[in-house]
Amino acid sequence: MPPERVPVPAPALERLVTDIYVAHGMRDADAAVLARVLVWANLRGIDSHGVSRALRYVELVDKGDAKARPEISVRRPRASVLVVEADRAPGPVALNAAMAEAIETARETGVAWAAVRATTLTGALGYYTSLAADAGMIGIGMVAGMPNMAYEGARGAAVATSPLSIAVPAEREPTVLLDMATAVIALGKITQYRNQGKELPPAVAVTKDGTPTTDPELAAVPLPLGGAKGSGMSLVFELLTSVLAGNAIVSSFHNGQPDGKRHRQNAALVALDVSAFAPLDEFRRAVDETLETVKGLPRMDESEAIRFPGERGARSEAERRAGGIPLPKKLWESLRAEGERLGLKAPDLEPA
Amino acid sequence: MPPERVPVPAPALERLVTDIYVAHGMRDADAAVLARVLVWANLRGIDSHGVSRALRYVELVDKGDAKARPEISVRRPRASVLVVEADRAPGPVALNAAMAEAIETARETGVAWAAVRATTLTGALGYYTSLAADAGMIGIGMVAGMPNMAYEGARGAAVATSPLSIAVPAEREPTVLLDMATAVIALGKITQYRNQGKELPPAVAVTKDGTPTTDPELAAVPLPLGGAKGSGMSLVFELLTSVLAGNAIVSSFHNGQPDGKRHRQNAALVALDVSAFAPLDEFRRAVDETLETVKGLPRMDESEAIRFPGERGARSEAERRAGGIPLPKKLWESLRAEGERLGLKAPDLEPA
Repeated sequence: MPPERVPVPAPALERLVTDIYVAHGMRDADAAVLARVLVWANLRGIDSHGVSRALRYVELVDKGDAKARPEISVRRPRASVLVVEADRAPGPVALNAAMAEAIETARETGVAWAAVRATTLTGALGYYTSLAADAGMIGIGMVAGMPNMAYEGARGAAVATSPLSIAVPAEREPTVLLDMATAVIALGKITQYRNQGKELPPAVAVTKDGTPTTDPELAAVPLPLGGAKGSGMSLVFELLTSVLAGNAIVSSFHNGQPDGKRHRQNAALVALDVSAFAPLDEFRRAVDETLETVKGLPRMDESEAIRFPGERGARSEAERRAGGIPLPKKLWESLRAEGERLGLKAPDLEPA
Repeated sequence: MPPERVPVPAPALERLVTDIYVAHGMRDADAAVLARVLVWANLRGIDSHGVSRALRYVELVDKGDAKARPEISVRRPRASVLVVEADRAPGPVALNAAMAEAIETARETGVAWAAVRATTLTGALGYYTSLAADAGMIGIGMVAGMPNMAYEGARGAAVATSPLSIAVPAEREPTVLLDMATAVIALGKITQYRNQGKELPPAVAVTKDGTPTTDPELAAVPLPLGGAKGSGMSLVFELLTSVLAGNAIVSSFHNGQPDGKRHRQNAALVALDVSAFAPLDEFRRAVDETLETVKGLPRMDESEAIRFPGERGARSEAERRAGGIPLPKKLWESLRAEGERLGLKAPDLEPA
């Protein structure tokens, strides 16, 4: 049975979550970014990365894995390279700052590569690449985290479901926004099957010790997309993020190093300035033309529209901005209860 | 029945192919690069992209789709951006030059993005990203070409099997070399099944009009890796290469524009200088450590080693450099016949 839901206006939700973080000791600006990124995920329909994770950041701070008031520093060792030392900031705080710097740098040199070192829970990677697209640039992002996915030929969780995101600005059409994990199925999807008592499709997950299963109660480790391809991408993303930033996760996790299993993530964000190649408006129109060509191709199933990456998320965002975010009642009540516990004013649920 | 094979030493093969291209009017240096890239693919065990395609370039030149003596030009509109106008050069000639320029630029600014416009048949993309790794850098490449793969929800060939390649330098271990198409199965693999009269696995290909099939005689269009993920990657690579370079393929192909179906490709090559982030030798050792950690994980099947991307290719290269490239006899004879027709000296088959 699907959980009962209440439509919560995005501004009220963002306000409440921001206030909760401020009450937990975060700076106003950091709290606002963190709340914005979480609510954005809900708006886009990526509820697994939305405010259901809001209190996870508080837990990470309480455990000492994340810092409420990190000192983020940015070095620029070469004209187009940024090294962002995140100091265990909540992921959104560090990645939002990193992409802003990358966009500034790319305006000057055409492209910027920002390595983000020692961050925590990234949130929806597409948010940061979208920032580049909003600035008329192409945004590329990849993240590595704690091992939770199988590697082709290995038993158990070996590498992370490390995502890749690419955002490209269009004109009439919404921003193209690819945001994909390197796993066949998301961990959150396995939980959904479990909650609904439904059997998993074959060949998407294995048990803790690597046995294939379709039982969502036993499934613990998602399989990589396309076997060697998905696990190869994930391994390479670990090299391009963690190892390049001098903060290896996969090796220290498996080799039993002190703090090797402590939660942390690393990321790479790239901004590429379209106007270095061609007038931006010409590019945007050519993107539209490509998207509309693909959407206009003969369909496999007449009743199923052909979609491009990000199209469904843009529609969700429009609908949810207008009609509110349908939050599970239990989640909404737990956030309100946390607000009350902290002595915050109850949020106004009327649409702004 | 597998075809009869003859072991051909790489230097003799490279010499013969170079001479054939020179006799067909290419410049000495261009002919040498083209032969080197093809023979490299054979050495690495990627025979589908090796000298079996050697005469395809001659055909492309004869049809006017490629130029034997292109005038390649390189602009640098911003500090870290290169625009390489390939002038319909054979892909290897243009991409080899583009990566060389990107490496030079990245030494200065840390990262360089080279857009390669209007090239032809790229060959094995991993060759160019390996050049960056050989120079102590990370190499990234993507290519878009003529539609030959399905797009999630569309009928027939919609987008290309556009590959992604990432190369990362190690120390003890061979270079990590990811080089993957966005399709579940390569077109060349379908041909192999056809030649061997074997049925295809399910859900890897469809007929010309989009009907799923396991009959290799009817299979015409490979399916994208992971459905929406693979086709989304391919679409985005078209935007990042063709559309960014002002040479859209997907839209002009499907919209019946003049020359819309004429063979061409576009690419993007990125060089990222590791030494901007950390001392190169430290990085190489940390890459080794990650690779060796993954290889040492508990195995799914005790008798099957865990491998990283590029490991198998490196072993093939060592074996084939020592013992020759096992070429199908028919292919070897057709190359020798072409050499004789052009009045070239028969190659010496003794290992160098």
